[in-house]
Amino acid sequence: MRITQENISENNQSILSAHQQELDFLSGLLSKEGVDIWALIDKIKEFQIAVPSWALGAGGTRFGRFGLGGEPRNLEEKLEDIGLLKALTQKTSSVSLHIPWDIPSDYSTITGLASELGISFDAMNSNTFQDYGQQETYKLGSLGNAKKSIRNQAVDHNIQVIEIGKKLGSKGLTVWLADGSNFPGQSSMRNALQWTQESLTQIYTAMPDDWKLLLEYKPYEPNFYHTIIPDWGTSSLLCKSLGDRAKVLVDLGHHLPNTNIEQIVATLMYQDMLAGFHFNDSKYGDDDLTTGSIKPYQLFLIFCELISGSEDGAQTWESISWMIDASHNTKDPLEDLMQALEVISICFTKALLVDRKKLSACQLDGDVVGAQECLQEAFQRDVRPLVREARIQNGGAANPITLYRKLEVRKNLIQERGANSRSTGL
Amino acid sequence: MRITQENISENNQSILSAHQQELDFLSGLLSKEGVDIWALIDKIKEFQIAVPSWALGAGGTRFGRFGLGGEPRNLEEKLEDIGLLKALTQKTSSVSLHIPWDIPSDYSTITGLASELGISFDAMNSNTFQDYGQQETYKLGSLGNAKKSIRNQAVDHNIQVIEIGKKLGSKGLTVWLADGSNFPGQSSMRNALQWTQESLTQIYTAMPDDWKLLLEYKPYEPNFYHTIIPDWGTSSLLCKSLGDRAKVLVDLGHHLPNTNIEQIVATLMYQDMLAGFHFNDSKYGDDDLTTGSIKPYQLFLIFCELISGSEDGAQTWESISWMIDASHNTKDPLEDLMQALEVISICFTKALLVDRKKLSACQLDGDVVGAQECLQEAFQRDVRPLVREARIQNGGAANPITLYRKLEVRKNLIQERGANSRSTGL
Amino acid sequence: MRITQENISENNQSILSAHQQELDFLSGLLSKEGVDIWALIDKIKEFQIAVPSWALGAGGTRFGRFGLGGEPRNLEEKLEDIGLLKALTQKTSSVSLHIPWDIPSDYSTITGLASELGISFDAMNSNTFQDYGQQETYKLGSLGNAKKSIRNQAVDHNIQVIEIGKKLGSKGLTVWLADGSNFPGQSSMRNALQWTQESLTQIYTAMPDDWKLLLEYKPYEPNFYHTIIPDWGTSSLLCKSLGDRAKVLVDLGHHLPNTNIEQIVATLMYQDMLAGFHFNDSKYGDDDLTTGSIKPYQLFLIFCELISGSEDGAQTWESISWMIDASHNTKDPLEDLMQALEVISICFTKALLVDRKKLSACQLDGDVVGAQECLQEAFQRDVRPLVREARIQNGGAANPITLYRKLEVRKNLIQERGANSRSTGL
Amino acid sequence: MRITQENISENNQSILSAHQQELDFLSGLLSKEGVDIWALIDKIKEFQIAVPSWALGAGGTRFGRFGLGGEPRNLEEKLEDIGLLKALTQKTSSVSLHIPWDIPSDYSTITGLASELGISFDAMNSNTFQDYGQQETYKLGSLGNAKKSIRNQAVDHNIQVIEIGKKLGSKGLTVWLADGSNFPGQSSMRNALQWTQESLTQIYTAMPDDWKLLLEYKPYEPNFYHTIIPDWGTSSLLCKSLGDRAKVLVDLGHHLPNTNIEQIVATLMYQDMLAGFHFNDSKYGDDDLTTGSIKPYQLFLIFCELISGSEDGAQTWESISWMIDASHNTKDPLEDLMQALEVISICFTKALLVDRKKLSACQLDGDVVGAQECLQEAFQRDVRPLVREARIQNGGAANPITLYRKLEVRKNLIQERGANSRSTGL
Repeated sequence: MRITQENISENNQSILSAHQQELDFLSGLLSKEGVDIWALIDKIKEFQIAVPSWALGAGGTRFGRFGLGGEPRNLEEKLEDIGLLKALTQKTSSVSLHIPWDIPSDYSTITGLASELGISFDAMNSNTFQDYGQQETYKLGSLGNAKKSIRNQAVDHNIQVIEIGKKLGSKGLTVWLADGSNFPGQSSMRNALQWTQESLTQIYTAMPDDWKLLLEYKPYEPNFYHTIIPDWGTSSLLCKSLGDRAKVLVDLGHHLPNTNIEQIVATLMYQDMLAGFHFNDSKYGDDDLTTGSIKPYQLFLIFCELISGSEDGAQTWESISWMIDASHNTKDPLEDLMQALEVISICFTKALLVDRKKLSACQLDGDVVGAQECLQEAFQRDVRPLVREARIQNGGAANPITLYRKLEVRKNLIQERGANSRSTGL
Repeated sequence: MRITQENISENNQSILSAHQQELDFLSGLLSKEGVDIWALIDKIKEFQIAVPSWALGAGGTRFGRFGLGGEPRNLEEKLEDIGLLKALTQKTSSVSLHIPWDIPSDYSTITGLASELGISFDAMNSNTFQDYGQQETYKLGSLGNAKKSIRNQAVDHNIQVIEIGKKLGSKGLTVWLADGSNFPGQSSMRNALQWTQESLTQIYTAMPDDWKLLLEYKPYEPNFYHTIIPDWGTSSLLCKSLGDRAKVLVDLGHHLPNTNIEQIVATLMYQDMLAGFHFNDSKYGDDDLTTGSIKPYQLFLIFCELISGSEDGAQTWESISWMIDASHNTKDPLEDLMQALEVISICFTKALLVDRKKLSACQLDGDVVGAQECLQEAFQRDVRPLVREARIQNGGAANPITLYRKLEVRKNLIQERGANSRSTGL
Repeated sequence: MRITQENISENNQSILSAHQQELDFLSGLLSKEGVDIWALIDKIKEFQIAVPSWALGAGGTRFGRFGLGGEPRNLEEKLEDIGLLKALTQKTSSVSLHIPWDIPSDYSTITGLASELGISFDAMNSNTFQDYGQQETYKLGSLGNAKKSIRNQAVDHNIQVIEIGKKLGSKGLTVWLADGSNFPGQSSMRNALQWTQESLTQIYTAMPDDWKLLLEYKPYEPNFYHTIIPDWGTSSLLCKSLGDRAKVLVDLGHHLPNTNIEQIVATLMYQDMLAGFHFNDSKYGDDDLTTGSIKPYQLFLIFCELISGSEDGAQTWESISWMIDASHNTKDPLEDLMQALEVISICFTKALLVDRKKLSACQLDGDVVGAQECLQEAFQRDVRPLVREARIQNGGAANPITLYRKLEVRKNLIQERGANSRSTGL
Repeated sequence: MRITQENISENNQSILSAHQQELDFLSGLLSKEGVDIWALIDKIKEFQIAVPSWALGAGGTRFGRFGLGGEPRNLEEKLEDIGLLKALTQKTSSVSLHIPWDIPSDYSTITGLASELGISFDAMNSNTFQDYGQQETYKLGSLGNAKKSIRNQAVDHNIQVIEIGKKLGSKGLTVWLADGSNFPGQSSMRNALQWTQESLTQIYTAMPDDWKLLLEYKPYEPNFYHTIIPDWGTSSLLCKSLGDRAKVLVDLGHHLPNTNIEQIVATLMYQDMLAGFHFNDSKYGDDDLTTGSIKPYQLFLIFCELISGSEDGAQTWESISWMIDASHNTKDPLEDLMQALEVISICFTKALLVDRKKLSACQLDGDVVGAQECLQEAFQRDVRPLVREARIQNGGAANPITLYRKLEVRKNLIQERGANSRSTGL
């Protein structure tokens, strides 16, 4: 199924006048405060977020998975789904593939389809946390396994992923290492760290010069006593040993309770060490809920750090990668992704509205109350008209979810692909 | 120092036209959606929040305390401070006293002053967590102490607090029990629970028929292994053994990491067992930060439960008590309280805006995405014009903090009371 | 495969003399302190723990599962595995079945086999958290679903489980309710609680008079915003509305970070409301690790509460059910269960060694240091000779894991059942 | 008050024969397993732990403090208290001073007394988290304050502390930085980190060549939104920018919930970056309870890492500093410290008993069950006879707390110093 420009325009027509009124009023208010509305809308328009290939089907937990219907059956259909998202939101210009789930059978077909849909290939993802027919098992780890032959196999797999990525025009490799242990004593934590460092060095060396290595950290799950890369500190330690093109990837769900994530962002930018984000939200652990659905203020504060860090020259905005990485257990993934894109856009916009000069003055004066007022002034603002305007200008739908439902997209996908199609992924 | 109606009017004049414009535009939008703006503003106007007498000076931690200047030196000056807050916000019509810190030397002076300032006496607070010259030490507990004589002393103290409250017109007793233990084995947790139940029964029996007992829970601090009343379940267990007028008090900071507090509110209302709130916010523990400064969405969700619970008839709105209970370690307490009042009003208003019929339909239809849209529709709205209008109609300042600073209130208080005055409290 | 009494005796012979020496020395020490060694050993011998049918194969996470080889392919083989455990440890005299995974095709075969192996049927477990061909989906809940037809189906399933249990001689039904929501707004938490209460009432009513309902609580997973029964308070609230035979089941992994679980045990016993335990251990969440592998001192403290609660007459020891519920992701399940049985026995024994009179005196005297010394005195003791002696007297192996490996049990099971056999379960 | 060698000998005499019997039996068992008992006892004897000067009086919380009686009134009396501890345990050969609380009025008196008592001066501690009469307030921070003059003052204070330490023979400076913020926006986290780095550089430069800088981290308290050095990663980042003699100090209570602290130890040793320890225990936060009183197995695992890291040559044992840092709110500090010293010795000894060759083989073979057995084999052992023997050989009491009580030390101290004497400290 494809959504046409006509579908979009027709739908937008019906709410354009109400939208314009809201936009005008908000513009009036903001202009009085010295905000350059059009520059701001341009920034929103330019901000694009990658979608992972594995997030287009129903997710699940260890207790089970509930099918969805119409899930993409292959890489082509995954691209089509992202194409639908792109048509509606104009915010998803790239896809992040996962190997071995997404090995193209025919490269030209895939690159052709991607090009037609205006989708490029974001960072590639390797998989050394499952057994899928390879020689040796990853049951007790991969890049940090005590057995050299298993480490070698995992390194080779990552190099193969790089090769596939090169053919698609990707420029990055994301490594999420599930390695760790379930029980005290099971592994030598120091040795495992050293082996991991050695394995990563081999992978880094095999990477083209214009590629970036994005190294994730995660404190637990699927291992429940220790993971080899549990925190930003360990990821950073490894990246620094690799070289300039290795940086730390922040997945919002990969933290211990009460972690100040926005501070980690600040600390990484301080060192020019932030690779990018996996957006999601959580109340308990790596819950992989829709980003902004639980702690929207945290997301806003993260964007405040990102904007401040890039405007201050700590790290460039362009050097940072953006991806959504949530699990859609009870929602239609496409609708869920649209909700995520909306809240990301809203928080980004609100963060842009922060009066940074005033905030900085409060910080220097020790005016704690004033600083909080600055943030509230931006956060309380209803910026949806700006986000909508940016989307409309980009050619997207004024109200993507409404249109998605009106066009009965899921129903169409089920008709095309069946009610029991199952997407590869988690 | 007093703030006059003239101070207020003069100040409001200057921003009234801008305010009116914003209010009109928002009213237009909301009216189209069927919202009765004026009924809504009336609800905001009616919503009043108590201020505790101990939150008007600088707070501190076990590592120290940094003075503020101009702190109230006695109960009269505490009332005056609340009078200032009331003049500016018209949201603080009552004070919650703490005994022994606030024993009136002359009752008629105090009630006269309170009446003049339009302040009534909210629930009384007892103190059995410190030694202040009483016969026996509370070092190892009070109402649940292993020594009967200490339990008796703590019961007597609470009864004395009730007597003082009766003279002031209070109608409630809040019991926060710090009792617990620091080490496994230190106390028999079952015995301590039973002694506590017996002590509370004596206190409850001594309470007038039109009084309410508000029983707090807290998982840790100042005891760090166990507390006798760690969670809502234990508080509820005790309250049910006491009688209908004993209910569970929710202090937002008194929960383990990741607790779903809004669910506790729902569960308590399900049983008609919610006594009321101590508003504050926290990132780690009982941090006692300004409410809404860390997790504003959680505060919004709590108000959603409160409104839904009362509108569905689970528990009446009038039966619930509201108080701010934060510690002002680095901010001017009066400014901090104004920030708290503002964010409470905002979250309350947003929760009132939730289209509950639509939400309910989504819930019955299993439309998870739609339900989230309902909440976002209300939460993303900028409701500050409504909150401001309610305040202006009530006779308060359009922008309380700005006026407070313009009038140099703190400077005046320092002149009156000195730079080193110290308020009783934490 | 069966392990014979000869296998056991032959093996025990080799270490009997060393064992006897250790036992004698320890007996000498303890006797001097007034401990009745033989009464103590009798208590260890009598303490039996149920094994769940679903814990005999490899467990997994949402990221995957690594097979084990020789996993039981059906209910008969599950019983055989428990028979092996029983032969080695003499600690596992019952099995807890899970429906629909364990519906007997022929009841007399199953009861005959169980009887031959000396295994009885512990509490039955229902499953309303997965779809396995039933009419309506449990995607959005079961007993607390917004749709009445789904609630009815879930109630009927539980009643069917009771019917099956009756034929097997079980005397209990364990309800773990996965119901909840992933996002704020998704469900009305109050309504869901009420529906759950109504559904449970129907189930309770259908239960024979000599059955017990064990109601579990869990704060999150597989739902990540709220679960209908998140804590002991909610479970207790529901049980009290049902009747005397409904009690609260404590799964050690089902708590928020830092929860004082031993206090929950004390509070439940205070009310005669403790149904029993699911033993496991965790560092982060419901990690389902081997019990005692992460926090052995906590397990000891839990047993201290259990012994004190039953000796004080708060709740009888016989009214409490015991089961191991761990997930064996990287270990051989049979070996893992033997490790769990060992550490449970050790902590139980150490808790029996606590000088409760001395402890009680310390508590009454406020001797915090002395109380801690009492617990340390018991915890530091090496009680393995006592646990070993109890096992030998019961007819089990002196060193179960060593014998298990010597007999190459897993290798035999793989030969019998294949390297890719897969057990039903999680 | 002093405890004489006669006091010790007389007391030891009475239990020597029972002790010898236990020791002999244990030696017999361990010798069979190839353990060199006497080498092991030597290691226990050599292991010495510093005591901080501020932990000899009653601690407290922000809710209050309960006095103890007989608290040391000055530095001399603090040394005397440590002298008592030393006489009883022979484990506390040094003291860690805190400035400005412990500025010697006369250096030769202090060094003379220390020398007489056999106490040396461990790392010095600076205080930039309180106001004690200095020019500028530390209310909003010190080394990372936005105001340069305040940063300078804090740097100067640290340099003064170094000067005092030099006169006493100390060789280290411990910096615990309480700096941070209570609210989002209050401070620029990147700027604060940079200022901190600059300030630390000045301090490091002022340090003698044979000194070590021990840099603590702590996620929260007394600041509750962010702290400038929240985790080992940030501390490590700063230390690396300073130079080889700056290393990361681990205080066991300074971690977010569920942190794997033993892994942090391993990761720091991997980099030769571990400065040392502040021993205590916690259930919730920085509870400062007696080390080993809540999670003794964690303490054992930490010692396993320490021994393995030093034996493998990752970092030398001698380069690591050891100190107890607990708060004694309800216990007599001297008794509490003796309990801490005992459990530290026990866990250290058990960790020494781990069969590291066997463990290593299990790790390489992927024998998860076997690895756990290795740890259990050591942890379940009752090693108190070894710890006692080491203490006796060193000239200490067989049972220090018993003798302390028999000699009525606290009663004597109260007679000497009064019931209301108050020690400086927290």
